[in-house]
Amino acid sequence: MKLLLINGNTTQAITDKMADAARLAAGPDTHITAVTATFGARVVSSRSENAVAAHAVVTLAAQHHHGCDAVLIGVSLDTALGALRELLPMPVIGMTEAAALVACTLGGRFGVITLGKRTLPMYEELLASYGLEKRVAAVEGVDIETRDYGDSRRIADGVVALASTLVQERGAEAIVLAGAAMAGQHRELQARIQVPLLDGITCGVMLAELVVKLGLKKPQLGSYSHPGAKEVVGVDPDLVKLYRRAEG
Amino acid sequence: MKLLLINGNTTQAITDKMADAARLAAGPDTHITAVTATFGARVVSSRSENAVAAHAVVTLAAQHHHGCDAVLIGVSLDTALGALRELLPMPVIGMTEAAALVACTLGGRFGVITLGKRTLPMYEELLASYGLEKRVAAVEGVDIETRDYGDSRRIADGVVALASTLVQERGAEAIVLAGAAMAGQHRELQARIQVPLLDGITCGVMLAELVVKLGLKKPQLGSYSHPGAKEVVGVDPDLVKLYRRAEG
Amino acid sequence: MKLLLINGNTTQAITDKMADAARLAAGPDTHITAVTATFGARVVSSRSENAVAAHAVVTLAAQHHHGCDAVLIGVSLDTALGALRELLPMPVIGMTEAAALVACTLGGRFGVITLGKRTLPMYEELLASYGLEKRVAAVEGVDIETRDYGDSRRIADGVVALASTLVQERGAEAIVLAGAAMAGQHRELQARIQVPLLDGITCGVMLAELVVKLGLKKPQLGSYSHPGAKEVVGVDPDLVKLYRRAEG
Amino acid sequence: MKLLLINGNTTQAITDKMADAARLAAGPDTHITAVTATFGARVVSSRSENAVAAHAVVTLAAQHHHGCDAVLIGVSLDTALGALRELLPMPVIGMTEAAALVACTLGGRFGVITLGKRTLPMYEELLASYGLEKRVAAVEGVDIETRDYGDSRRIADGVVALASTLVQERGAEAIVLAGAAMAGQHRELQARIQVPLLDGITCGVMLAELVVKLGLKKPQLGSYSHPGAKEVVGVDPDLVKLYRRAEG
Amino acid sequence: MKLLLINGNTTQAITDKMADAARLAAGPDTHITAVTATFGARVVSSRSENAVAAHAVVTLAAQHHHGCDAVLIGVSLDTALGALRELLPMPVIGMTEAAALVACTLGGRFGVITLGKRTLPMYEELLASYGLEKRVAAVEGVDIETRDYGDSRRIADGVVALASTLVQERGAEAIVLAGAAMAGQHRELQARIQVPLLDGITCGVMLAELVVKLGLKKPQLGSYSHPGAKEVVGVDPDLVKLYRRAEG
Amino acid sequence: MKLLLINGNTTQAITDKMADAARLAAGPDTHITAVTATFGARVVSSRSENAVAAHAVVTLAAQHHHGCDAVLIGVSLDTALGALRELLPMPVIGMTEAAALVACTLGGRFGVITLGKRTLPMYEELLASYGLEKRVAAVEGVDIETRDYGDSRRIADGVVALASTLVQERGAEAIVLAGAAMAGQHRELQARIQVPLLDGITCGVMLAELVVKLGLKKPQLGSYSHPGAKEVVGVDPDLVKLYRRAEG
Repeated sequence: MKLLLINGNTTQAITDKMADAARLAAGPDTHITAVTATFGARVVSSRSENAVAAHAVVTLAAQHHHGCDAVLIGVSLDTALGALRELLPMPVIGMTEAAALVACTLGGRFGVITLGKRTLPMYEELLASYGLEKRVAAVEGVDIETRDYGDSRRIADGVVALASTLVQERGAEAIVLAGAAMAGQHRELQARIQVPLLDGITCGVMLAELVVKLGLKKPQLGSYSHPGAKEVVGVDPDLVKLYRRAEG
Repeated sequence: MKLLLINGNTTQAITDKMADAARLAAGPDTHITAVTATFGARVVSSRSENAVAAHAVVTLAAQHHHGCDAVLIGVSLDTALGALRELLPMPVIGMTEAAALVACTLGGRFGVITLGKRTLPMYEELLASYGLEKRVAAVEGVDIETRDYGDSRRIADGVVALASTLVQERGAEAIVLAGAAMAGQHRELQARIQVPLLDGITCGVMLAELVVKLGLKKPQLGSYSHPGAKEVVGVDPDLVKLYRRAEG
Repeated sequence: MKLLLINGNTTQAITDKMADAARLAAGPDTHITAVTATFGARVVSSRSENAVAAHAVVTLAAQHHHGCDAVLIGVSLDTALGALRELLPMPVIGMTEAAALVACTLGGRFGVITLGKRTLPMYEELLASYGLEKRVAAVEGVDIETRDYGDSRRIADGVVALASTLVQERGAEAIVLAGAAMAGQHRELQARIQVPLLDGITCGVMLAELVVKLGLKKPQLGSYSHPGAKEVVGVDPDLVKLYRRAEG
Repeated sequence: MKLLLINGNTTQAITDKMADAARLAAGPDTHITAVTATFGARVVSSRSENAVAAHAVVTLAAQHHHGCDAVLIGVSLDTALGALRELLPMPVIGMTEAAALVACTLGGRFGVITLGKRTLPMYEELLASYGLEKRVAAVEGVDIETRDYGDSRRIADGVVALASTLVQERGAEAIVLAGAAMAGQHRELQARIQVPLLDGITCGVMLAELVVKLGLKKPQLGSYSHPGAKEVVGVDPDLVKLYRRAEG
Repeated sequence: MKLLLINGNTTQAITDKMADAARLAAGPDTHITAVTATFGARVVSSRSENAVAAHAVVTLAAQHHHGCDAVLIGVSLDTALGALRELLPMPVIGMTEAAALVACTLGGRFGVITLGKRTLPMYEELLASYGLEKRVAAVEGVDIETRDYGDSRRIADGVVALASTLVQERGAEAIVLAGAAMAGQHRELQARIQVPLLDGITCGVMLAELVVKLGLKKPQLGSYSHPGAKEVVGVDPDLVKLYRRAEG
Repeated sequence: MKLLLINGNTTQAITDKMADAARLAAGPDTHITAVTATFGARVVSSRSENAVAAHAVVTLAAQHHHGCDAVLIGVSLDTALGALRELLPMPVIGMTEAAALVACTLGGRFGVITLGKRTLPMYEELLASYGLEKRVAAVEGVDIETRDYGDSRRIADGVVALASTLVQERGAEAIVLAGAAMAGQHRELQARIQVPLLDGITCGVMLAELVVKLGLKKPQLGSYSHPGAKEVVGVDPDLVKLYRRAEG
């Protein structure tokens, strides 16, 4: 199968890191194509940056989805997830949603660890929007600025410390890593953490493979069916085309 | 005061209708400036159209907020509301949020009526994201396509019938009209409905005036404070500038 | 417009403090009439005192509502709010509800600060009864007895310390002051607090002005419509009269 | 033991009906004293009547609690329940709360049937305030005016029909009768209903006996401990005395 | 009346301790028969042990319920509660549910204290399954291994310390003791705790007496009615017989 | 990988049907071993039958898990799911949980269809216990007795009719089939239903493959870690051994 990985951040290095993690996770027959947002924030980490990124993600999807079997959204806020599910004919998976759903297969509540403190409410809102708030033990953030996202050791130590707190004081029985910049880092961190550690890209690739294999029908009714022929203006021609397509 | 009304739909007629309703609602010292999205759907009525509209709304805000005292978002899905609240130095109000909060001042649960059936889950999710789901009696939609939004009589009859059901069978003690295309229409419909009828634009203008008068401080911490100097690329120069501005 | 401010406490000094705050908040055309409970606790700060105050508030409303355009309840537990909304023909606003709803226009969760620890569960229950529990970050109380309510400096320092905790540890993005004895005190405290600070009387006056301006219809059905002609005995004659009035 | 039954309605006939039901439910050593509100509505069935009744109930409790082992509130809205629990040294039980808690011992969700449609939201709010909303299948009301509360057959047929609907369509596995005017009526109705039928007065008397037998300690801290010496004015001298009493 | 007390643990000493507590709580006409699980864990304190205990409890009930008026489940996880309610013709009470429901008659939220930390999520889930999560202030566990359950002083000191924390920091207005091994221990501990302390066996016996006295009908429909004639194989002959019995 | 499929019903034909569906779903390298409960109900469809089945499932797991990479529970009530997750060293998946989690990857709320009406509350409770109640549109049951579970056409027509209601009236955007007896039947039914149809066994096999591939760590702390060396008596020797094993 062919999986389109869309990075909603405009930083190629993050795309590369996610693509590497994706390829490690993918089955032998899965081909990963990774694309990077052409406009918006270098690292999406605020509400407004996320709003702009949604358009960037929708645009990339319109341009690159042809021939793909599934799409994986590579921003830890799962930017534009509902939008793509509605618009595209193939399954779409969000990286943080994927890790959260896999965490659910383990039982109990999971903790979430992200980078920085500012976005904590945004992750709480995201997981609540998935109807999963009762499964969330707590969301914590490593105290770090976006400019230090490359400091892997500092991130690693921060994650390990927060995980310990989440497990021992908040009742977390698994930990979800939420942060595109940490993609794949669970491999080195798991040994230092007492409960299962879930990575969004890794879970997302496998969940995408699963849903493709299931061969589910595109909904023909409801808010996730294709919106039908709609007139949109001033956007990428590929996106215009996607709206012109007949429903179904 | 000067109020910027941002229409996230690319239809000028909707802007005009909302601006008319806004001017009827506004105090004598309130000046309304209404702007229309330059890209995106004619009438936002699906998840993907809403995602694109968020960027359009953010862009219009960046271009036109200078000199304004408050911003009112004129899309009934309150598109990009959190984004603008974070990014702009002045208060931002969403039209549906405004009607919902004013409905809360009446006590009990309110019903919500929109146009079309497809978006019902989106309004339920929106109100849940505001933490108001316990105040919502039910969300119903007039069975109509976007191309018939100009048929005022059909809309009026539909709203009256749904309102009656919501009041008598679902325990609604007020009704919120959710739909930019119905802006100001409560004036003619109220007489046919047994409980208070709330219009988003009307409530939004007055709530914007209230918040401006309160003179509240911009948060200096948290997810609604300015994100600080951030590098964003490929977007409108006014938006780039907004991110470059020092925090506070 | 004419606004009736009802103090459910039997302390004139609190009425005066609230009336001062109300007049500072009111528009040029708003006339405030403030009345004080004639029976009950000096400072309502327990469940039983609140139960008695409800009757006092209803009685004052029956005696003084004629000719008023709206009523503002000046007890931070919003005593008898639903009762007045049902019984009176004009809008009724509760001071804590008002501050909470205005806080909602800012986005995110708000913290609540009151005086004393004993009433914390009562405020949690009050906000839950408004369906707003998901918007409440936490409720905290300045550790102070009712006899020290005049010690403004101690209250101020207590509020500032609690606000800092609520913002940094509990994710509050705004703070609601709940306490009639603190009416208007946000003016001096805001500078020391990093997020917007909301005062019940100030928000209540403005929200009352807004709802009056909206000119909403009195519900003709439901639990907030007038209960119709009812026989009540042993209560204030003005209250008896209010129940005798034909519905609508 | 001696049980004080407080009717918050000012109708002696309802007191008598409840006292009869209470005596049928009581153990051989339980002595019931029933008192009737001296002011307020004939039949409490609206928010404002309930607010006034709270004061009447608190006053009756202050006057008559001496020498009693427990208090049962005889209004189906459990008027002033929290107030009495805080203020009195002995246990206090609400009739509808009692039936709801006993229904919980049966497993599953219970339906609630009251008289009239107007108060439905008030019962929903009451049960939600007890934290029991997940146990409530639905609340329904027999379509009847207070003046027809004496028409037992019409009430009986209405209850049976609603119970059937609640069981078959809403998943109710027990039925709570909420209405002082139906006290004891479960005895004749149970045979016509397929699931257990709970009467507030019957359950309330037995639960009061249980809690007295348990001999629980009065809380010394928290919002249900005695509020301590407080100055209250203009109220019944017995109530003033109750506030003057030293804590504990 | 005759009450069957079923210990789901395979430790006779726990049965004896619970039976002692039950006899102290029971009325003069209540006869307690206590039986002990014949297979499963010595002390049920994990998910899998609880799963096995459910079968043991159902089997004991099938063997011993004849001639009993009610059944009390003596495992603090209320093992097989719903199963017995469905299958048996008489009322069934769970010890922790009983204490929780009696705690509800006191108003406010209650804290729960158990033995050990491992089972905390299981008690949170149990109380949530009763729809009581909003009444739970927090669940805490005395830090002790099952082999030290006989160390009464250590348990006592642990409970007193946790109760103090629950009352002062988590807003608990009552405390529920959850642990068969602590049955009856509230008698000695109450004096050291500032709010009412509830013991499952004590509350359970009295609640069983109450429900028997009420004489409620067995449901004839729904998930708690008898499942009807069913073929079950490989289980205790008394259990097979219980399924063969005609419905109702 | 080797997957152990445990049928908690004592009917071999159901095992065979589930095994067939499992083999159709499995990848080329997945080997399915299916075992059948040796005691308990022919078809688990009540609370007490489910309680007994839990022991049967735990026993089968103890006997057959050696050499397996994952376990799939083949009862649509996911009997003993938490118990096995705690006790076994390998991943355990429940069939209904699997379908529900895969439904979550599609966005929006899903409807659930089972066989019979009696178990509806049990499925609602099951999904609520997973913290997924906000994702459930409604649970409906085909009106059929267990003796008619072989009537595929009647089941098929019932499912199609209920699915249509769930989609059009309850807002379901996907449908979960809950019923071991319908395993694999989605293949023939999907064409008649407008939204994706999820089968528990199919989703469960694939989710088990996914989790095995992830290679997650067994928790070393918390309520899903191995309970440690425990003395259990009177149960299958393989189960005794499983408890004797050192932790981890």
